[in-house]
Amino acid sequence: MNFSSFLTSLGTSFVIFIVLMLLFAWLSSKPGNSVIYYPNRILKGLDLYEGGSRTRNPFAWIHEAMSSTEQEVISASGYDTAVYFVFLSTVLGILVLSGLVLLPVLLPVAATDEGVKIASTTSNGTFNDLDKLAMGNVKENSSRLWAFLLATYWVSFVTYFLLWKAYKHVSGLRADALMSPEVRAEQFAILVRDIPPVPEGQTKKEQVDSYFKRIYPESFYRSMVVTDNKVVNKIWEELEGCKKKLARAEAVYAQSKKTGKPEGARPTNRIGFLGLIGKKVDSIEYYNEKINELTPKLESEQKETLREKQLDAALVFFSSRVAAASAAQSLHAQMVDKWTVTDAPEFRQMIWTNLKIKYFQRQKYLPFLKPIVDLDAIKTVLEAYLPQLALIIFLALLPKFLYSLSKAEGIPSESHVVRAASGKYFYFVVLNVFIGVTVGGTLFSTFKTIQKDPNSLPDLLAAGLPLNATFFLTFVALRFFVGYGLELSRIVPLIIFHLKRKYLCKTEAEVKEAWLPGDLKYGTRFPGDMLIVTIVLCYSVIAPIIIPFGVVYFGLGWLILRNQALKVYVPAYESYGRMWPHMHTRILAALILYQLTMVGYFGVKKFFYGPPLLLLAIVLSLIFGYVCSKKFYRFFRDTALEVACRDLKEIPNMEQVFRSYIPPSLSSDKIEDDQFEDALSQVSRSTSFV
Amino acid sequence: MNFSSFLTSLGTSFVIFIVLMLLFAWLSSKPGNSVIYYPNRILKGLDLYEGGSRTRNPFAWIHEAMSSTEQEVISASGYDTAVYFVFLSTVLGILVLSGLVLLPVLLPVAATDEGVKIASTTSNGTFNDLDKLAMGNVKENSSRLWAFLLATYWVSFVTYFLLWKAYKHVSGLRADALMSPEVRAEQFAILVRDIPPVPEGQTKKEQVDSYFKRIYPESFYRSMVVTDNKVVNKIWEELEGCKKKLARAEAVYAQSKKTGKPEGARPTNRIGFLGLIGKKVDSIEYYNEKINELTPKLESEQKETLREKQLDAALVFFSSRVAAASAAQSLHAQMVDKWTVTDAPEFRQMIWTNLKIKYFQRQKYLPFLKPIVDLDAIKTVLEAYLPQLALIIFLALLPKFLYSLSKAEGIPSESHVVRAASGKYFYFVVLNVFIGVTVGGTLFSTFKTIQKDPNSLPDLLAAGLPLNATFFLTFVALRFFVGYGLELSRIVPLIIFHLKRKYLCKTEAEVKEAWLPGDLKYGTRFPGDMLIVTIVLCYSVIAPIIIPFGVVYFGLGWLILRNQALKVYVPAYESYGRMWPHMHTRILAALILYQLTMVGYFGVKKFFYGPPLLLLAIVLSLIFGYVCSKKFYRFFRDTALEVACRDLKEIPNMEQVFRSYIPPSLSSDKIEDDQFEDALSQVSRSTSFV
Repeated sequence: MNFSSFLTSLGTSFVIFIVLMLLFAWLSSKPGNSVIYYPNRILKGLDLYEGGSRTRNPFAWIHEAMSSTEQEVISASGYDTAVYFVFLSTVLGILVLSGLVLLPVLLPVAATDEGVKIASTTSNGTFNDLDKLAMGNVKENSSRLWAFLLATYWVSFVTYFLLWKAYKHVSGLRADALMSPEVRAEQFAILVRDIPPVPEGQTKKEQVDSYFKRIYPESFYRSMVVTDNKVVNKIWEELEGCKKKLARAEAVYAQSKKTGKPEGARPTNRIGFLGLIGKKVDSIEYYNEKINELTPKLESEQKETLREKQLDAALVFFSSRVAAASAAQSLHAQMVDKWTVTDAPEFRQMIWTNLKIKYFQRQKYLPFLKPIVDLDAIKTVLEAYLPQLALIIFLALLPKFLYSLSKAEGIPSESHVVRAASGKYFYFVVLNVFIGVTVGGTLFSTFKTIQKDPNSLPDLLAAGLPLNATFFLTFVALRFFVGYGLELSRIVPLIIFHLKRKYLCKTEAEVKEAWLPGDLKYGTRFPGDMLIVTIVLCYSVIAPIIIPFGVVYFGLGWLILRNQALKVYVPAYESYGRMWPHMHTRILAALILYQLTMVGYFGVKKFFYGPPLLLLAIVLSLIFGYVCSKKFYRFFRDTALEVACRDLKEIPNMEQVFRSYIPPSLSSDKIEDDQFEDALSQVSRSTSFV
Repeated sequence: MNFSSFLTSLGTSFVIFIVLMLLFAWLSSKPGNSVIYYPNRILKGLDLYEGGSRTRNPFAWIHEAMSSTEQEVISASGYDTAVYFVFLSTVLGILVLSGLVLLPVLLPVAATDEGVKIASTTSNGTFNDLDKLAMGNVKENSSRLWAFLLATYWVSFVTYFLLWKAYKHVSGLRADALMSPEVRAEQFAILVRDIPPVPEGQTKKEQVDSYFKRIYPESFYRSMVVTDNKVVNKIWEELEGCKKKLARAEAVYAQSKKTGKPEGARPTNRIGFLGLIGKKVDSIEYYNEKINELTPKLESEQKETLREKQLDAALVFFSSRVAAASAAQSLHAQMVDKWTVTDAPEFRQMIWTNLKIKYFQRQKYLPFLKPIVDLDAIKTVLEAYLPQLALIIFLALLPKFLYSLSKAEGIPSESHVVRAASGKYFYFVVLNVFIGVTVGGTLFSTFKTIQKDPNSLPDLLAAGLPLNATFFLTFVALRFFVGYGLELSRIVPLIIFHLKRKYLCKTEAEVKEAWLPGDLKYGTRFPGDMLIVTIVLCYSVIAPIIIPFGVVYFGLGWLILRNQALKVYVPAYESYGRMWPHMHTRILAALILYQLTMVGYFGVKKFFYGPPLLLLAIVLSLIFGYVCSKKFYRFFRDTALEVACRDLKEIPNMEQVFRSYIPPSLSSDKIEDDQFEDALSQVSRSTSFV
């Protein structure tokens, strides 16, 4: 790619961005679109426009995003989103502080050297302007290289400093969340798995109750044995589906009365495959019948499930947060693979089907890259040189696969699965895309070389990086202009919503379903960002011109996502910042990869002070990571008791806490408390609440 | 070494053994020696001879040792000793089961092959008889090698099976100990370190009390802030020394009245350096004066210490075992380096001076081998070829050094330091002695080769092992004949005791001090045993003739140490079997080293099925180790709550529990409870005891 095509690509992206921004300004001011651009505020019942005026400045959102506080983000989108912004601002800070020193120092140092005339760059002599501003322009073993060495250290220290501050800040955020005086059901419960076989003459419920009552005579409240809800869920979903279809049929019927004949046209449907074949029936009658038929079936299945389908897992409720936090961290049984306890996930992120997986089957799928690398289809695609757009599309397809891989590890909570998948995705992206593209063009041949001799990595990177500078510059620019443009303008969800509303939705509930936003999806967003972090860090000293691109990416990202967090996305669950240690570790991993690259590149430049001095920097990074994980990490795994012992604003209603964990398919007005007896234990006795 | 000198060496060792056994039979029957041969029983106030008769069979101890139960060992010598016997019997079992199959199968298979005439063995053609019985006698790529391959698997499976059984058994022992209805003070306490600076307007005691009272309103009992006792200990020791010397002077004076003039000769001593120079004074007067002078000094220093020398550590006492066990496992502070908690060590194994060491200074001294390898003195000794006896002596000098190295890691408990030192000792022994001797004669050159290319280890071992078979056979025989002979006969302690009693001891207390036995010292004993395990396992298939030697070592060891455990040694502390996971891991490490060796040796024999099939065995060993550590290990680190919640035989006297942790230098009849106020908190309130 020569300089003019680089500029063309940049220009095209910029034009697309401007168009999307203008589209956003126009579309978002239309009242009919407010469900797309303000769903979070609508669901919270807030005023859509903060100023109150409808005919405001179309770019007011920028001001609103800039002036919003962290507390506003937390109340709009939760702690996990706030932590994601800590990530964005930390990286932005690293890049800005690095750029402030590196750009004014390194660019002149590089540009005023005599220049090395190498014919074999990708630019083929036509791309001199950018090349002159890079470290490649400095002569071998020049004393000017000291400036680049010091710059590497500057970037490292800036990273340590900001990461330390951020970890401390996020730890404080998490503490705030956990010591909140609000009653949160999951803080009163633990999840028990691997319950041993029931002893003769006891029910499982009695077994669980007597076990925990004995250990916690004061604070044990009640337990809930987990059941296999596969069948009951199916019936329940069928029933709910029928109810929705009935409502829809009735809406169609009412509509037809208004528009057509006054007696209306009763809607019909076919009962065969996908409603396309089979007998034609009157929909309202048909679904009413179905509902009458399914309701007793559901009830009997509910009883059956509670009685017969108990699994070796249970939720145990305590009357105080300290008791639950302490219990979740303590070893209960002599053999670790019995009565294993963890803190209970939030109800909305429970993965019930994973609870029955036995202790030794819940092992991590570490060699996760193997099946991916071996998939012939993927291989064929990747073996060819991927242009930027194809790369982005391919990366968008991968997360689903990694998510199901992580889910198969037996993790009981949604957010944990997302973290695990996100980790895999990160390693895939960095190992395969960044290193692959840099080192060789074909990804897997390189990967195999590195596997054979890991020590060759710095040299390979050092040789490959300067050749690919423009590729990555374009890549980053494409990501922020087109990616964030699409993000803000929400063109795709908007079009889908309007199509659905026009042709499919008949009832209010269906319309709402059509515009309901998802969450921020930081699980997949974050590895993409990390690819940018890795690229920008690795090039920061070799070609400092990349730093402004990184600053724009994270600055624009911060701004646009701030808007989306405040007005659009609705969090699906809350993990109180448990993602942060992963973010921290991966930024550090990117830094170390960068330092490794520089070791290789100073070697290429025959600057003999470079490699040993940079190995010292790598050791520093490892020590920094070790100290951070020692100091901060455990609080992200376990709840500190000093945090859990804070007072609540009210005496918790334990019955409500307990009931909040009953799956909808098992809860019914008709099912009386005594029918739960089989799987759910009774209130033990009046307990003291803390 | 040729065959006749091998036999000579073996014969000499055997004669020494017989002589020592006869000496033991004769000496142990003399009543004056009973304090050397039965100190454990004397201290427990038991009958010395189980039969009761004095003129019994001098070899009755063998019957007594054989018929003793594990419960007897536990009541005589504690759980740690019982666990050491589990180790001995497990290894013995592995060797016996291996020998039962390997000896009758492999020896004929090897002996009946045509034999490989290699001139370059150490035996130089004169040592054919042993060589014929070894794998070296089998031709290259012979199908007979299948027998050796299967034998390797047999040894591996026997090891897995017995190790699994043993882990389960020891875990049960530990559970028994921890759920015992006896009140053990350490089960009610936790050790808190890294207490943050005292907030304005609070004392440290108030800070600790309010922190734990808030988290454990029900179960917190009282706290004890740890003080820096260096000065007070010194005064206390001086005072105790004076008291002893006074008692001694009075005894000498009373004696002189009986033997010499009726008015007696008042003993005198010089007060200068070591009592050799300076003014001569009347001892009784002098020590009386000193005591009168030191007593008020001690009292004022005690007050000073309690008030001014508080450290950032405390012992916190709970009114129930479950509360203490749970508290010791839970994270208390948001930052992990503040308020760190662990279970309290027994009072007798507290290492008070380590308690003030800060969190981040307590890091493991992992590169512990470095200073040893670099010590020039040791290097010179080791660079030369060490004959067996010199090797044994050298190995005896090392433990003290490794102990102080481990203590410097900041570990607060004696038994933990012993475990850490024992681990270092094991790696030193196996890496330097076994691999060193086998591979090259000079230890450190080899070590460096292996560091450079770890993959070469199996080949080097395979090449070296056959050459050193006789060296190791002699070594093992020397260890059991001379080592265990000395152990049983206790010649050295006996001579020292008689010399002390005759020339030094004047008072009863001094005599008792002279014969007081130590403990079993499994910390240093066990790595020595592991060297034998490693040697015997590695040779088990290559030269199965070594197996009987190993069986004798562990059989004899079991027998003789059983006698010592029942009658001689007195445990210095109790860790309830925490050594076992280390023993388990190291036996497994020896097995893996053995499998690696066989990979190399089958390579040498050009038997191409061998290496891949044995790599499978190594993978099996790693999986086995992983599963064991997952299933069993955590219970050896943390106390399971189901164990801690068992009922006690009486309501614990918490005041007594608390007082048992006051160091003797700080406890005094004169110091009233209110004087402890500064460092020791008051009883919070009447609490419910579990």
